[in-house]
Amino acid sequence: MEANLLRFQSFPAIFTISRTKSQIFAVQIAPPLSKNCNFLAISGIQKNRTHSVMASASTGFKNASRIDESEMYNLDGIRSSLIRLEDSIIFSLVERAQYCFNKDTYNRDGILKETEKINAKLGRYKSPYEHPFFPNDLPESILPPLQYPEVLHPCANSINVNKIVSNMYFNELLPGLVKEGDDGNYGSTATCDAICLQLLSKRIHYGKFLAEAKFRASQVEYETAIRAQDSKKLEDLLTYTDVENATLERVKKKAETYAQVVYEGPSEVESKPVNKLNPGFVTSVYGECIMPLTKRVIQVMYLLKRLD
Amino acid sequence: MEANLLRFQSFPAIFTISRTKSQIFAVQIAPPLSKNCNFLAISGIQKNRTHSVMASASTGFKNASRIDESEMYNLDGIRSSLIRLEDSIIFSLVERAQYCFNKDTYNRDGILKETEKINAKLGRYKSPYEHPFFPNDLPESILPPLQYPEVLHPCANSINVNKIVSNMYFNELLPGLVKEGDDGNYGSTATCDAICLQLLSKRIHYGKFLAEAKFRASQVEYETAIRAQDSKKLEDLLTYTDVENATLERVKKKAETYAQVVYEGPSEVESKPVNKLNPGFVTSVYGECIMPLTKRVIQVMYLLKRLD
Repeated sequence: MEANLLRFQSFPAIFTISRTKSQIFAVQIAPPLSKNCNFLAISGIQKNRTHSVMASASTGFKNASRIDESEMYNLDGIRSSLIRLEDSIIFSLVERAQYCFNKDTYNRDGILKETEKINAKLGRYKSPYEHPFFPNDLPESILPPLQYPEVLHPCANSINVNKIVSNMYFNELLPGLVKEGDDGNYGSTATCDAICLQLLSKRIHYGKFLAEAKFRASQVEYETAIRAQDSKKLEDLLTYTDVENATLERVKKKAETYAQVVYEGPSEVESKPVNKLNPGFVTSVYGECIMPLTKRVIQVMYLLKRLD
Repeated sequence: MEANLLRFQSFPAIFTISRTKSQIFAVQIAPPLSKNCNFLAISGIQKNRTHSVMASASTGFKNASRIDESEMYNLDGIRSSLIRLEDSIIFSLVERAQYCFNKDTYNRDGILKETEKINAKLGRYKSPYEHPFFPNDLPESILPPLQYPEVLHPCANSINVNKIVSNMYFNELLPGLVKEGDDGNYGSTATCDAICLQLLSKRIHYGKFLAEAKFRASQVEYETAIRAQDSKKLEDLLTYTDVENATLERVKKKAETYAQVVYEGPSEVESKPVNKLNPGFVTSVYGECIMPLTKRVIQVMYLLKRLD
C-alpha cells in the first residue's frame, strides 16, 4: 500500500502498474511460493546455512548480549560453510570474467578500502571470520559488540595473509581468468575485484577454524609436531586426501553448472554448452591456490603458534 | 616474482607456497588455459559482451576523448546486454536468498549510499545506463569524462524510477525471496541488497534504449500514438509477445541452472536437484515486476515525452 502511494505520488502516469498490483505481486504474497522460496527448509541446507550465517555474521545482533552459539569448531559445520562459500566464489569469478584485466583501473584499491570502512562500521572485522585488506585507519564499529565464543587461540589475531591473497589474485589468478587489455569498465572491474578478494580472503582464513578443529580432534599428535615445530609433519596431519579430492570434484561440477551459458536457442546449440569461464580453471584455482594457502599457510602458521 | 618477494618479506614461514609456485600457478600461465578462459572468444558471447561492456561502462576510458561506439540503439545489441544481465541478476538473488529478511539491518541504505558515492567518483552516473538511488550530494567524477553518443532524447535524463525499484524490491520481491526474521547478518544483507538494487535498476532503466530502438524502427506509428498521448496504444506497439515469452523461458532455465545445489554426494541425491531459490519465483519476478516496469513504466514514460 505504501508502495502504491509512493508510486502514485512520484509517477502519476504509471497507473497501469498499480492497477495490476494484485496480479503483479501475487507471486510474493502467495504462501506456497514464499514457502518454496524458503530454501532454508530444504533438507541439507539448514545446517549449511546455520554455519554460513555464523561464518559471515558481520554486524552484531539485535540483542547485543546474544552469543554466537554455532559449533564453530565442529569440522562438519565448518566444511558446510566452506561448501556454500564455493558457490559465492564461483559466482564472483564468473562475474569478474566478463571484463578485461583493466590494469589501469583508477583507484582499484579505493572501492575495497571504502567498502572495508563501511563494513568496519557495521562490525564486520569484529568477526573472527573476516580480515581486512587495509587494517589501518578502519573506523570503530557503531553497533553493539557481538560476543563470539573464544574458539581460537589468541595467536589467530596476528594472522592475516591478505597481502598474499591480493598478490595471488592480481598476479596469478586474474591473468588466467580475464582477457588482457582494457575495456573501460573500471568501476565494475573494481567492484568485482573487491567482492572476489573478500570471498577468497574469507575462504582462506577459514583455515584457522579448520586447524583448531583438527587440533582438538587429535590433540596429542598435534602437540608433538607443534613442540618440534615440524611444519612437514603438521602438513601431513592436516591432509585429508579424500576430502580434498571430493572438494575438487564438487568445485568442478559447480563451475560447469554455474558458468554455463544458458541458451534460448535451437536444441543443437543447447547440446553444446558453452561456459563463461573454464571449469578446469576454477578447479586449478582451488587445488593450486586456495587449498594450499588454507592448509600450508593458514593452518600450519596457526598451529605452529598454537601452544605459545 | 614480486609476489614471491612479498610473500617472503611478510611471511617467512610459508616457503612451501613459494617453493611450489611454478606448479601452483602453472594453470594461469599455461597459454591453453588462458585461452580457454578467454570466454569472449566463444562464439555467441563476443557480441553480448561488447554490449554488456557498454551497458556497464561506468568509469570513463583511458583515452578521455574516446567515444562509445557500440550500437546502443540496435535492438539486437541491447537484447544481448539484457540477456547477460539476467545471469548477474539471478546470481545476486541466489546470494541474497541465503540470509533472512533482517528488517532491522542497521543503516541498510548506508552501504548503497556510500557505494554510489564511490561509483560517482568513478563516473558511473555519467553513463546513460546507470541511475543513482540517492542522486543528491553525489560527488563529481574524478575521471576524464567519457563521451557517449547522444542516442536518447534529452527527456531520458528526467526519468529515474529507482523509488519504484526500491519499493518493489523491499516490499514485494524480498518477502518472497528470503526467510522472515533475523539472523544477524546485517552487513552481508546490506551488501547483497545494494548489488540486487543496482542490477534491477540497470535492467529496468534499459527500457529507455529499448523504447528508442523501437521508436526508430517504426517512427511513423509511434509518432501518431505519442501525439495522441495514447499510453495504451504505445504499450501495444511496444509489446513483442514472442520475445517476452522467450525471455521468461530462458530466465526459468537460467534460474534452474544457477540456483541448483550441486552435490558431491551419492547419485540418488544428485538425481533430485534442490534449488537455493524457486526458479518459478525468478520467472515471476521477471514476468510480473521487471518486464512490466521496463515496458509500462520506463518505455511508455520515455515515449510520451519523446517528441517534446
